[in-house]
Parts: sequence; C-alpha cells; structure tokens
Amino acid sequence: MIDIKNYENLAKTYKTPLYIYDFDKIKNNYLDLKEAFKARKSLICYAVKANSNLNILKLLADLGSGFDCVSFNEVKKALISGASRYKIIFSGVGKTDDEIENALKEDILMLNIESFEELLNVEKIAKSLNLKARISVRVNPNINPKTHPYISTGLKENKFGVSINEARKIYIYAKKSDFLESIGIHFHIGSQLSDVTPILESATLVSSLMRELKALEIDIKFFDIGGGIGIKYDDEKTINLYEYAQGVLKALDGQDCTIVCEPGRSIVANAGEMLVKVLYKKENDGKNFLIVDGAMNDLLRPSLYNAFHNIVSLKNSQDLVNFDIVGPICESGDFLGKDRYLPNLDKGDLLVVKDAGAYGFSMSSNYNSRLKPAEVALINSEVKLIRKRQSFEDLIKDERV
Amino acid sequence: MIDIKNYENLAKTYKTPLYIYDFDKIKNNYLDLKEAFKARKSLICYAVKANSNLNILKLLADLGSGFDCVSFNEVKKALISGASRYKIIFSGVGKTDDEIENALKEDILMLNIESFEELLNVEKIAKSLNLKARISVRVNPNINPKTHPYISTGLKENKFGVSINEARKIYIYAKKSDFLESIGIHFHIGSQLSDVTPILESATLVSSLMRELKALEIDIKFFDIGGGIGIKYDDEKTINLYEYAQGVLKALDGQDCTIVCEPGRSIVANAGEMLVKVLYKKENDGKNFLIVDGAMNDLLRPSLYNAFHNIVSLKNSQDLVNFDIVGPICESGDFLGKDRYLPNLDKGDLLVVKDAGAYGFSMSSNYNSRLKPAEVALINSEVKLIRKRQSFEDLIKDERV
Repeated sequence: MIDIKNYENLAKTYKTPLYIYDFDKIKNNYLDLKEAFKARKSLICYAVKANSNLNILKLLADLGSGFDCVSFNEVKKALISGASRYKIIFSGVGKTDDEIENALKEDILMLNIESFEELLNVEKIAKSLNLKARISVRVNPNINPKTHPYISTGLKENKFGVSINEARKIYIYAKKSDFLESIGIHFHIGSQLSDVTPILESATLVSSLMRELKALEIDIKFFDIGGGIGIKYDDEKTINLYEYAQGVLKALDGQDCTIVCEPGRSIVANAGEMLVKVLYKKENDGKNFLIVDGAMNDLLRPSLYNAFHNIVSLKNSQDLVNFDIVGPICESGDFLGKDRYLPNLDKGDLLVVKDAGAYGFSMSSNYNSRLKPAEVALINSEVKLIRKRQSFEDLIKDERV
Repeated sequence: MIDIKNYENLAKTYKTPLYIYDFDKIKNNYLDLKEAFKARKSLICYAVKANSNLNILKLLADLGSGFDCVSFNEVKKALISGASRYKIIFSGVGKTDDEIENALKEDILMLNIESFEELLNVEKIAKSLNLKARISVRVNPNINPKTHPYISTGLKENKFGVSINEARKIYIYAKKSDFLESIGIHFHIGSQLSDVTPILESATLVSSLMRELKALEIDIKFFDIGGGIGIKYDDEKTINLYEYAQGVLKALDGQDCTIVCEPGRSIVANAGEMLVKVLYKKENDGKNFLIVDGAMNDLLRPSLYNAFHNIVSLKNSQDLVNFDIVGPICESGDFLGKDRYLPNLDKGDLLVVKDAGAYGFSMSSNYNSRLKPAEVALINSEVKLIRKRQSFEDLIKDERV
C-alpha cells in the first residue's frame, strides 16, 4: 500500500499502534460494488458500524453513498459527514424510544423493523409526532450463512428479524395505520459471507413475499439485501460481485424496485492496516513471542472471533522464525496472530496487521487503561491525521466528579 | 444490595445501562483479604485493570492498599488517587521505554520483569537516568490453573514470565549490575481460580527459588503471589482465604519477607452490578428474547469468554419464561445471558446483571457508536456519580481534525 520508508515515517510522526487507511481503496471498493448493480436502480448504504470515522463517512457521502446505521449516534455521524437524509437507514433490534423519535424527526429514508412490538412502538411515537414513519421489515429467512456463529444473523435462533409469516402480518397491519408507510423489505443473514448461494436463496424467498405484498396493494420500493460480503483475510473464497448482482436480479424476477445493499467490511476492511512496533522478543521453553505495542484493546477480532489477520514484516529474510505476535495486555487472549513465520525481528521493528479497516478501531477499548490509537488516511499520496491519539486526560475526565 | 425502589430511582436519575458499585462491599472484600494475612507482613496490591475508576482507587488507597498496574496510565491513575508510590508495582509483558522511564522517575516500589530482554532494557534506562531500578522477576511455574485458556497465564506456552532457570540467571545478572536491585519474586498463574492447590504448588516452587537466592546473597524482600482469586458467578467453588494464606505461609517455610497479593476480581466483582432496561420482548419461532439497553460494548465478558453473570429481575412471579437476554448490537455474539428463567417482563422493566464490578466497565468500548455508560457508587447509603455517561461530542471530537 505504501513503501517501507513511509511506514517508518508514519511510525515516527504518529507513533504506534496506528491505523492507516487507503482512501483510494475505499473509493474503489465502493465504486466496484456500485458498478456491479449499474443495470438497476441501486443504493449502497455503507454499514457505519464497520468503521465510523467521520472522515471515512464523508469520503463515502461525497461519492453518493447512503448509510446503514445501527444507533442514532451513527445516524448523527452520517448526517454530520454530509450524508443525504434520504439515504440513511436505521437498523437494529434495540432502538430506544428516544432514538426512534430522533430518527423520525430527522426524516431519514426508513427504519428497519425487527419485531411486531417495535412496529407498534414506532407507530405510537410517529403518532405522537403526527408523522408517517417510513419502514422496512427485516425478514429472517432461517438460512444458514455458513460463517462464524457470532456473525451469523439469519437463523431463527438469532435475535434478528421476523419470520416470513410475521413479516406479512406486520405489512398488513402497517397498511391500515395512518402513521406507518411500508416502503422497504430487508434481510441480512450474516457477516463475512464467502458463498453467494445462501444470500440468493434468501433473496428468492424475500422477493416472493414482496410479490405477494404487491397483490395486497403494498408497494415495496426498496429491496434491501443487507451486507455481509466477505473479504479475503487468508485463503477464503470471495463473492464475485457481478454474480451477486445478477443473482439478485434473477431473484427479483422483473419486479421494479431499488436494490439496497449494506456493505461494511467489503468497503473498508482491506483498505485498513494497523501498524505496530516490536517491544520485546521472548522465548519461553521453545515458544517464540514477539510482544508488540498493539493489543486486543486496539484490535479485538483475533481474541473475540479467533479471526485471522495477515501480519507482515517490512524486513526481508530467508530465515524465518515461528512467532506468536502478542500485545502487552495481561491476558493470554491478547494476541494478534499465532504461529506466524516471520524474519527474526528485533525491538523497534515494525509489523503491519493487514485488513484491519473493518471492526478494528470501531471495537477498540481502553482495557488496561490503554489509550485509543490514532488513525491516518492516505489521500492522493498525502497523509492526513483523521483521529488524534486519545489523551490521558480524556481517559479520566469523566471520573473527576 | 439496594432495594427495588432505589433501582428504579437510579434508572430514572442516571439512565441505563448503569454500573452500580457498593463501596462497603469493596472495603469489606479488601479487609477480609488483609485479615487473612494478618499474621505476617503483607501488602495487598489491588489489580487496577479489573476496574480503574479513580474513585474506587481512592477508596482502596485510603484503606492503605497498594496497586498492581499493567500500564503507566494505571500507575498515573493510582498516584492521582492518593496511592503511596512505595506500594505501586508495575507489571506486564509489554512495557514501553517511555513507560519504564516514567515509572523509574516516579520511584514506585518495583517493576515486575517478564524477560531477560526486558531486564536489559530496564537496566539501560536506569543507567541513563543514573537510578537503581528495583525489580521483581515473574516466574512462570508451568502449572495448570484449570481456568479459561484466555485467563490462564502460568503455562510455558503463555507469554508471561520466565522459567525458574531463566529467573535464576536474571537475579544473578541483576546482582552484578549497578543499576538493578532485586527486591521481589513473583508468580501469577491465572485469573478466576477456584482451587488453591495450583497456587500453593507454585508458591512452593517459587519459595524454594527464593531460598536458593538467599544462599547467593540475593535478599528478596517481597514474595508476590499474584492474584487470580476466583469469585462465585454461578456455582463455582471459591477459595477459602484463610487456607490460602496459611498455605502460602507453609510454602514460605519460615522465610522472612512481605507477602504481596494482587487481587482484582475478588475485591470488586461482586460489589458491582449493571442495571439495564428491557427495550423489547421478542419471540422467534419459539425462542424468547429480552432485548435490553446494555450490550457487549458495556459488558464484554459473556461474548468474549462465554462468561456467566446471574441476571435478576426486580419482579416476583411464579410464572417463569425462558429468555435469552441480548443487547441492541448488530451481532449474534451480543448477549448478556442465555436460557435464563425470568418473569414474563415487559418493556421498561429493569434487570440487574450481577457481579459486574470487575472487567466490566474496564473492557467497555464504543462499538456501534454507543456511549460508555455512567458509573455510580453507593457510599453509606448515599449515591454518588463516579463517572458521567460519555457524551456524543466526546465520541467524535478526536475525529474533527
């Protein structure tokens, strides 16, 4: 992504651990997906939860992207970044009353409804505001996405969405309400998907519900196929975007609507890296460790999902050593990578944790009283600081009461 | 801990999710442990990583507690809270040069050394400051603590500590250095331990190394037995503190030293609760969910370790329903408890997540752009806000660059 010299300069200027994003790559990832759907009306709504840095949201907003938000704070961040309110969707199983009220007042495109109880709540709040709430219903198609159980969301034992039967009931109820307007239908079966088949099976099921609704004079304008397009962290298969788009078109079988897609990971993951520095090399009874200055508080995915991130050295060497790359946190679960063959690095050497643009900074914490890392963007070969490293004073100020 | 009325008042005044700590309980937990070791010189060094709220640190500092810190930020927090510098230990496998320099300048009790490479680094920094660094060596006794692999730390495949042989070499090297002074010996085999046997086996091994060092005229004054005393989240066995202390005394076999103990969880876990509110009740094909306003970003332990927290309702009922208690985060891994029998609660009802005082707030994040929760303390039946709820402006201010 950038040359060795630059990594060293970045480490000198901004310190480590440091998140580095390639804005051209983000742009291209967005445009590639947009291109795949060019034959039809489409709206890409970037899933803000993957990486909510305001500068990334602004880049995407400027490209015309919409936003899929899972809290009203994410809606606010999208609006601050210049998003069009009519391209903002508010999803999530646990919207509070305040969040619903604020979203309705902001007049965003639609709310994704996750249960009948939520529908009634939205109706009540819309009524109190004398507004008509535009809604979409999240259908849980009960299809196995074949991914990590924590990021599988479309099975009936998951908390997400409603069954096809329940969705039908919700649409029929909404039709009769003065304060609800059904404009969308939605499914999202999981994250980091490598196989298009379960997505297209779901699309077919949901499309046929949409056709049925049409017969009931419920005119759905937005067919929201969710996100979850996987990326290649290691040797995963990835989804061909053209096949994906064509498959969705086929599932729609001629129905006229705007296709909404909610990608997060596939837009930002491979555009981001975490730069870390070796603090110590250590051998315990034949097992080698590189202790680096980035940790599970900076990048939780390895600890939480046992996720793989490629970790590369800036040094070239034929003599490779098997290392566990671990952080300074006092927990054996604090690792970035295990059993990796790397040159025999020393204190001060840099390592690049690849594909860390999604669910990296956004899941970061202050565990062990560590400060949140800085973030920089590479924009037209220029480096821009897009988030300052957190200060110690910030860490404690809310406790001085 | 407090009556129902108060929970409702707390929710009204401070909103939910809310961390609530009983300061009397923290005090008693500290005093119980201190009492167990009363027959000998002892120093309790509270493990700050468990919960680093300044007000909790101040409570413990006022009781005479020392502090075990795993980052220099934790050292700073302890000092700000009024800790005596001679009761502060700096542990951790990844101390940076700046952290070591600052710790030496602050003249804290000692640094726990985790490798020969770290020892040389500390010596170099001490030399540059023309100081003598007081050190302790963390011995990895290679004993299985029988706990969750992520919180087991005393096996040779873990990143922590050095073997007995390596420790001996470190002490001999340090004796010859003008900038190092060995005053402690340390082991810590894991967290949430329910069985005293592996601790005492480790103590015996390490005690015999200490005796050997004495013969080499290396006079160890602090015998640091680490922390890791488990608590009862569910039906775990717990360690009898008297047996624990007596066992350590027996392992010391008459050697004169101050016993250092580094408890975190056992001081604060059962003194803390997280109060959450039901947002929605939902049924998916026979499976019942209570969607509450607290999530994995507020309390990560269930998601990360599959940890059990008892969850209690303020309502009494004979008719119980099997629920999964889940948060609003868009991830199936976002749950607080599964398969719990609770009264048939409704929107607005409160739930108390028990034993959340340790590794609760300290691991919290802003995932899904959620704000960090507020924390309150119950002190002599008075409620005191000890951390304000994070503000949206705070969440984004470092990104406005």
